[in-house]
Amino acid sequence: MRTTTGWLANSPTTLRRASLNRRDLRPDDLAVRIDYCGVCHSDLHALHDYDHSADAPLVPGHEFTGVVTETGPEVSAFTVGDRVAVGNIVDSCGICAMCAAGQENFCHSFPTLTYGGTDRQDGSTTLGGFSRDYVVRDTFAYRLPSGLDPAAAAPLLCAGVTVWEPLRSLGVGRGSRVAVAGLGGLGHLAVRMAVALGATTTVISRTPDKRDDARRLGAHDLVDSTDTRQMAATRDTFDVVIDTISAPHDLAPYLKLVALDGTLSLLGHLGPVTVEATDLLVGRKKLSSAGSGGRRSTAEMLQFCADNGIAADIEVLPSTQVNTALDRLRRNDVRYRFVLDMSDLD
Amino acid sequence: MRTTTGWLANSPTTLRRASLNRRDLRPDDLAVRIDYCGVCHSDLHALHDYDHSADAPLVPGHEFTGVVTETGPEVSAFTVGDRVAVGNIVDSCGICAMCAAGQENFCHSFPTLTYGGTDRQDGSTTLGGFSRDYVVRDTFAYRLPSGLDPAAAAPLLCAGVTVWEPLRSLGVGRGSRVAVAGLGGLGHLAVRMAVALGATTTVISRTPDKRDDARRLGAHDLVDSTDTRQMAATRDTFDVVIDTISAPHDLAPYLKLVALDGTLSLLGHLGPVTVEATDLLVGRKKLSSAGSGGRRSTAEMLQFCADNGIAADIEVLPSTQVNTALDRLRRNDVRYRFVLDMSDLD
Repeated sequence: MRTTTGWLANSPTTLRRASLNRRDLRPDDLAVRIDYCGVCHSDLHALHDYDHSADAPLVPGHEFTGVVTETGPEVSAFTVGDRVAVGNIVDSCGICAMCAAGQENFCHSFPTLTYGGTDRQDGSTTLGGFSRDYVVRDTFAYRLPSGLDPAAAAPLLCAGVTVWEPLRSLGVGRGSRVAVAGLGGLGHLAVRMAVALGATTTVISRTPDKRDDARRLGAHDLVDSTDTRQMAATRDTFDVVIDTISAPHDLAPYLKLVALDGTLSLLGHLGPVTVEATDLLVGRKKLSSAGSGGRRSTAEMLQFCADNGIAADIEVLPSTQVNTALDRLRRNDVRYRFVLDMSDLD
Repeated sequence: MRTTTGWLANSPTTLRRASLNRRDLRPDDLAVRIDYCGVCHSDLHALHDYDHSADAPLVPGHEFTGVVTETGPEVSAFTVGDRVAVGNIVDSCGICAMCAAGQENFCHSFPTLTYGGTDRQDGSTTLGGFSRDYVVRDTFAYRLPSGLDPAAAAPLLCAGVTVWEPLRSLGVGRGSRVAVAGLGGLGHLAVRMAVALGATTTVISRTPDKRDDARRLGAHDLVDSTDTRQMAATRDTFDVVIDTISAPHDLAPYLKLVALDGTLSLLGHLGPVTVEATDLLVGRKKLSSAGSGGRRSTAEMLQFCADNGIAADIEVLPSTQVNTALDRLRRNDVRYRFVLDMSDLD
């Protein structure tokens, strides 16, 4: 067993510094020194749902970058000193139809999550990236392309691939008309990627003072979702609406924006959703969802971002300020992603 | 004003024979002698929802075939004696984005329905095809291709185009894997069309004794929806699942059948539908709906059916037995569509 330092759930809203165990390297494992880890909305959910009396220890964090510090004897794709990135899944069955299709994130026997998951070999609960070191199977580590800043790239590993997969699978490219509802951690990356893919991209937001930001990110315009006239004027005009709004909300106004045979893709808030079938029928609209990514598309997304100069807009905080980051994220007080600098854990 | 004879709502479950008015021909109108009119599930709904004390008279029927008996002076596409067909919409605004896209069925100012609609010129309530004669604007009548039996073709005008549009818009063709849930009026036409488009087609039904029928229609197999093992064995295997089940039902078992990036299209039961977003997320599945058809695809569908020998399996009843037909349809006692022969109204 190896030890490292990290941030452990202490209450429904706070973490505390603690010493953590990491497994000894298996033949196909890497040890990674974590330099930067993004703070994701799902970290808030995990903390909120955490039961101290019943659950295994919780260390959040599932979008991080760092440097390889040690490799198992069978690792050939990485060597010590390589810059790497890890996302929200660290293993899968490898044999089901979804894994065979390169969609390990949809593994039939459920992928092993980077934290709160169950290790497929020893049954232990995985502890996340709000820590100085991680041990990961080589196939679930990604080489960080040169040109990507390791801090601003960290959020690509969850937020980035979560918006990348629907943009790609829905065929977004030159001439596509894309709307991004909600301009936050997911949304601002969706705008950058859609623009780089060649789409005319519009932000839908209840915060019209983000208009300048939307334009800076490459969006063509911002539609104020609280202005019924603006919303009516864009009815049936978007091939793809990427909905990154993290709170429960009525989908009907967003379905109205979708063009004939277009798709509303839900990324921000999961749970039961109710729609009127006629809101799908009129215009043959589709409701979809996506989340996380497979190994192939994660690697593809990282290279695309490197090639197109895409990374997250981040506010870097020392990891000792993790509780401030969580608190401010809860109030949506960040443009657009917190990244924790883990070097203060040394 | 002209008069004809038809079947008028008399109670929440029955119709009675009555004399009806039809408008005098406008310059672009046709008069049509109705020979055959299909009986659709929505006729049951219309009758059930009908309020005798408040609503205008109700004459159901919106999928019929017949012969042109008179034409307005500006009609050039049809002459007296032509075999024609009319579906569930008889007018639209003609200028909105949906009409411009050839999807008059999604007209922004709502298409004029064949019955229970409001005529766009005189504001009267339209009376449907359970009658001997109809007056219709020429652009919403379709030439009945030679080779199509006028009785068996009548259900194509609503049931047929309702399944045709999603099959086409979802790109079903050679190599597609299609499942049709529910083998009734819509379902049996969906099977025939999917097979003719080149898809490997499977019926999902709670009535396994329809297996022979499914095979006769061209389906590869029938999966018993009440057998969890059979359902599990076909998980993630269909690019398109056409759901024609007319009663409210849990969508989760049908979403499970959809393959990566595939679509579940709801045709049979409309109303509010609730799904777990994660049932869409895992496999990036899509939920969609469709209904009725635009002019272009209706004409295309009729020609496709003529070219491929596709029509409905029907039980023809004299129109005097309309109440029997409604009652038996309510009990799903028909394989697969009732068609009323209107000649007994002379």
